[in-house]
Amino acid sequence: MSKLLDHLTGDAEAEAFFSDTADLAAMLRFEAHLAQAEAEAGLVPDEAARHIAEACQNFQPDWSRLAEGLTKDGVIVPELVKQLRQCAGEAYAPYVHLGATSQDVIDTSQMLRLKGLFQLLAARLDELIEALRRLEREYGTFHLMAHTRMQQALLFTVADKLTTWIAPLQRLRINCDRVANELLVIQLGGPVGTRAELKGKGDQIAEALAKSLGLSNAPCWHSQRDRIGELGSWLSLLSGALGKIGQDVALLAQNEIAAIKLATGGASSAMPHKSNPVPAEVLVTLARFNAGLLGTLHQSLVHENERSGAAWLLEWLVLPQMCVATAAALRHALALSRSIQFVGSSKM
Amino acid sequence: MSKLLDHLTGDAEAEAFFSDTADLAAMLRFEAHLAQAEAEAGLVPDEAARHIAEACQNFQPDWSRLAEGLTKDGVIVPELVKQLRQCAGEAYAPYVHLGATSQDVIDTSQMLRLKGLFQLLAARLDELIEALRRLEREYGTFHLMAHTRMQQALLFTVADKLTTWIAPLQRLRINCDRVANELLVIQLGGPVGTRAELKGKGDQIAEALAKSLGLSNAPCWHSQRDRIGELGSWLSLLSGALGKIGQDVALLAQNEIAAIKLATGGASSAMPHKSNPVPAEVLVTLARFNAGLLGTLHQSLVHENERSGAAWLLEWLVLPQMCVATAAALRHALALSRSIQFVGSSKM
Amino acid sequence: MSKLLDHLTGDAEAEAFFSDTADLAAMLRFEAHLAQAEAEAGLVPDEAARHIAEACQNFQPDWSRLAEGLTKDGVIVPELVKQLRQCAGEAYAPYVHLGATSQDVIDTSQMLRLKGLFQLLAARLDELIEALRRLEREYGTFHLMAHTRMQQALLFTVADKLTTWIAPLQRLRINCDRVANELLVIQLGGPVGTRAELKGKGDQIAEALAKSLGLSNAPCWHSQRDRIGELGSWLSLLSGALGKIGQDVALLAQNEIAAIKLATGGASSAMPHKSNPVPAEVLVTLARFNAGLLGTLHQSLVHENERSGAAWLLEWLVLPQMCVATAAALRHALALSRSIQFVGSSKM
Amino acid sequence: MSKLLDHLTGDAEAEAFFSDTADLAAMLRFEAHLAQAEAEAGLVPDEAARHIAEACQNFQPDWSRLAEGLTKDGVIVPELVKQLRQCAGEAYAPYVHLGATSQDVIDTSQMLRLKGLFQLLAARLDELIEALRRLEREYGTFHLMAHTRMQQALLFTVADKLTTWIAPLQRLRINCDRVANELLVIQLGGPVGTRAELKGKGDQIAEALAKSLGLSNAPCWHSQRDRIGELGSWLSLLSGALGKIGQDVALLAQNEIAAIKLATGGASSAMPHKSNPVPAEVLVTLARFNAGLLGTLHQSLVHENERSGAAWLLEWLVLPQMCVATAAALRHALALSRSIQFVGSSKM
Repeated sequence: MSKLLDHLTGDAEAEAFFSDTADLAAMLRFEAHLAQAEAEAGLVPDEAARHIAEACQNFQPDWSRLAEGLTKDGVIVPELVKQLRQCAGEAYAPYVHLGATSQDVIDTSQMLRLKGLFQLLAARLDELIEALRRLEREYGTFHLMAHTRMQQALLFTVADKLTTWIAPLQRLRINCDRVANELLVIQLGGPVGTRAELKGKGDQIAEALAKSLGLSNAPCWHSQRDRIGELGSWLSLLSGALGKIGQDVALLAQNEIAAIKLATGGASSAMPHKSNPVPAEVLVTLARFNAGLLGTLHQSLVHENERSGAAWLLEWLVLPQMCVATAAALRHALALSRSIQFVGSSKM
Repeated sequence: MSKLLDHLTGDAEAEAFFSDTADLAAMLRFEAHLAQAEAEAGLVPDEAARHIAEACQNFQPDWSRLAEGLTKDGVIVPELVKQLRQCAGEAYAPYVHLGATSQDVIDTSQMLRLKGLFQLLAARLDELIEALRRLEREYGTFHLMAHTRMQQALLFTVADKLTTWIAPLQRLRINCDRVANELLVIQLGGPVGTRAELKGKGDQIAEALAKSLGLSNAPCWHSQRDRIGELGSWLSLLSGALGKIGQDVALLAQNEIAAIKLATGGASSAMPHKSNPVPAEVLVTLARFNAGLLGTLHQSLVHENERSGAAWLLEWLVLPQMCVATAAALRHALALSRSIQFVGSSKM
Repeated sequence: MSKLLDHLTGDAEAEAFFSDTADLAAMLRFEAHLAQAEAEAGLVPDEAARHIAEACQNFQPDWSRLAEGLTKDGVIVPELVKQLRQCAGEAYAPYVHLGATSQDVIDTSQMLRLKGLFQLLAARLDELIEALRRLEREYGTFHLMAHTRMQQALLFTVADKLTTWIAPLQRLRINCDRVANELLVIQLGGPVGTRAELKGKGDQIAEALAKSLGLSNAPCWHSQRDRIGELGSWLSLLSGALGKIGQDVALLAQNEIAAIKLATGGASSAMPHKSNPVPAEVLVTLARFNAGLLGTLHQSLVHENERSGAAWLLEWLVLPQMCVATAAALRHALALSRSIQFVGSSKM
Repeated sequence: MSKLLDHLTGDAEAEAFFSDTADLAAMLRFEAHLAQAEAEAGLVPDEAARHIAEACQNFQPDWSRLAEGLTKDGVIVPELVKQLRQCAGEAYAPYVHLGATSQDVIDTSQMLRLKGLFQLLAARLDELIEALRRLEREYGTFHLMAHTRMQQALLFTVADKLTTWIAPLQRLRINCDRVANELLVIQLGGPVGTRAELKGKGDQIAEALAKSLGLSNAPCWHSQRDRIGELGSWLSLLSGALGKIGQDVALLAQNEIAAIKLATGGASSAMPHKSNPVPAEVLVTLARFNAGLLGTLHQSLVHENERSGAAWLLEWLVLPQMCVATAAALRHALALSRSIQFVGSSKM
């Protein structure tokens, strides 16, 4: 839809993880490593695994047929596997995607990309905490009026205020590592999640696959979407903590309060005197947007049977948006923290 | 993000209303017609209005500066007006955007495009109702087992079932006209919504502007977002009614029930015998997606002061998605209704 | 749970419509009038209808068995009908609940009570609009600083501000009548919604039933929940409009802005100097609460088959809360509007 | 509102934690232990701490004045402290609630009760996992048709199915301990969250208070609501996992599939042959209810300034409901797991 708006609420770095090419690359990585792990387990000839790895590397997708496949099948995988098998050649075709199902490829591809995304978010979070600490070093001793229930309460300091912004970010930063480690796992189950098609070697193959892909290992979780729900919760907790900062800044930057000045304010088309706290407002927006999406994401926990097309697709519509919104919020929070000037004087 | 996924849950025709070029075209239409209405009211020389209309027609935007403007100001309008004034020339520049504010342009542009969108939805809804009636003519007398609380209840007919699908669509179709008429209105208020800059001619100008733009007339509603909330509700009611159809089809098409066959089912990458009811599942997904988004859209009713950057931006993130999801749902429902075959025999 | 909290966010008058006794009374009213309408249509002997009406009037429920019935059956109706048949006596028992199903009783009972609730809301809305107009008469000419994007914009007047509060309430007041008329309808369908058990007299009985109950007539809508979704939307639009007022008041009553003083502010346990704008905050809370609940209510539009226990029950958990929250919001808004004092002086 | 409905979607044991008397008891516990911790730190005479402890034990609240206080102040604490000071006597009154603020009492009281609630949920979760394992021991080797995308996929076993139900519950059970340990913390900050009123002894007092109350220690978190958001997420993940079980049971118990029989099915008022899977449906309802509430709870992360009346109150409306819904879902899941009979025969 609007590309322009992406400059405000999108995030090019984060969106890159959710492009079709990134998805396809991760899917091919899955297929290549799966064949390799299956070769190690003796289910696939070494030569086939090598050829499949090459095919994955040289693969040129027919995008329009992938699109047709998606429309018809609800997932691109049947068509993708067909194309990949052609690319691998008749002799090796049977070993492509052996014992796997669409959901294995799609969920693992998503997890691979979420891993990159979480690294991006962690790095931005580190940077933001550091920027807020710089504010603390510069302005920490300044007086600031605390407000409760929208009324003046008592004086405290800028350092006291910044503590309330930084502390949740630190907790979320610590949690980020736990979340990434516990929740970013491979998916491997085969058609109905039993790994039965892997002839007793399923767990061994899963372990090797996880290791080579750099994800945590886990039993099949096709219809168990708690990890997805928990990932979403972490994202919304983070954008919520940033939304609180944005709301505070917008309030403190009110002309009548003027406890904060922003180095760069937005202009108005009709009122040239104005300096609008645009990034602060965007943080509030993204927090509320993500909060609502989290509620929708958790609707998809009711994942019927062994694979729910409806609940799964709902995740696809929601989770990438939450990732991008969170990344955008971090970007704005960082810019905002660099443009904040606290007004006032040091506490004696 | 994923372009491929748009084939499933997006809708090219609907998305076109929310592209940057469509937005810009509608904004320019607003500016041209505003100048014309102001000329009729004697606030702008006729010659200026003509030149502004021409400038709007010939305008070539500098997109990258519009993007910068959006990032800085939270809206593209200050930068757009600057460019448009340059295009109109120094003599006429003061008459461009005279007495208007960013929100006037942006909200009216959205309403203009929503008008086209609602026409699209109405046309598809008509087509869907007709397709369902064709099913009724073909299969209406067939026996069908009714189910309540997920258990067999009593036999009724396919016509009885189709009535439960068609009746809400008919109500929503009727409501569509009311909604379009009552809710699709111009926005014109000036900086703080009082039309004070229009020197007593505000209401006259608003009336002329509404007429020439083909929207309903209304007093300024900058901070009064009930119309937006109600538009969203209609969209979600419609996608919800379609989600109910999708859920019913998925249930009736279960192999063990087999009351419905779909002419075109989706394939599985691992289970060639399967025929998946993909469009039915998509309808359920889109209903749940829109329901959640509606809850978020209504959060933006708490629109603080005379213009809330935060609440307004939240609408921009949500409402276009709801429009597209509803259009996509109608497209799938139409395709689905054409691929449904009821299995069974006529009631005696 | 907390009864105390009901003093803040509950509403005794509104809650009364959703008590078990109010529900039971409305259910008995349905059964009595159904028997009467069926008598008029010749399906039930007049004497039976009279006896059933008497039984409904004298009925003393065994609440603990109703509770057991609810737990077991998911609805109280099977047990209630059993008790009511005993009360009516063996001879008339077969005519009790004739041709109806649980959903007919429950949905109609709810609609009857919603009718009372909407009358309550309409009356409060009238009162609130009048109270705001009084503010306009008293303070309308006062200067007030307008704020856009959380920054000072331009001076306007208290009347300009009040217009932004009153106008949506007026639209919602007008819509209230339409909503009540279009959406508050009887439910009558029998086991699978076809009225087949009423032997060709279903439509005639429905018409008489609607007339005698004071509800609008409608075909069976067991699995068509658009009316419920639209009722919820109206509630959330109203609480949202009130939340906007609350947010504005909280902002204008900030000590640093002090454009509004509240006659009665809340105290702090630790800061005796404070005067907290409690009802203004409550309005914001209730708006956000209802917005979220609306999203959940629309999830129940995906009402599978001829009657969904799961989707229907979700409505029961959500809609009464929305009604009470809206009534509470109106009560607070009214109190607030009576305690507002605008500070300043008249515009010249 | 409806007390009857509480038999279905409420839970007496869980609700008890959220009664006014439980709240008051926990608040008094806070005040008594605070005075004791302050005595140990030398801020309060030992004798005063003893008298305050006694006053807390013997305290008889004037509920109607507490209600008035809540209505006026938005919290009961100012009025409660006033009553408690009277009870403690003039000499000790100044030491009651010394250095604390309303939010300290209210948040700590909630955490104390959440601790009990989480113990209840953990115990039920253990019981449920054990009940599901019993099903596995009894039926694990039975054939069962797996379904993906609402279509028959391949045969697997009841044990395979049960694994998909049990595994998320086990993860959530492990997470329950982490959540309780990390997130159930005391609140102590004083008026603006700095512990300044505790004269340098704040951290020491907090540590002693946490220890004596059996909660984890933490710095003040008045405006940092990430813990609340994360608690809510855990609740919704659990009810979501149970909703998935409920959905599966409802699908498997369809007459046409009949892979599951329920020992106790619900009756219909019009169709005596039916056996409705009521508890399975309730699980789906509660999952969707909690998912929606989670989205609303995360809206309250945007907690403006040092204390937001609006955002805080939103938590109070949402979190207790989520707790009760989750407890009710566990109760139904347990009952359901005891009434499930898988139909079929052992796999060879």
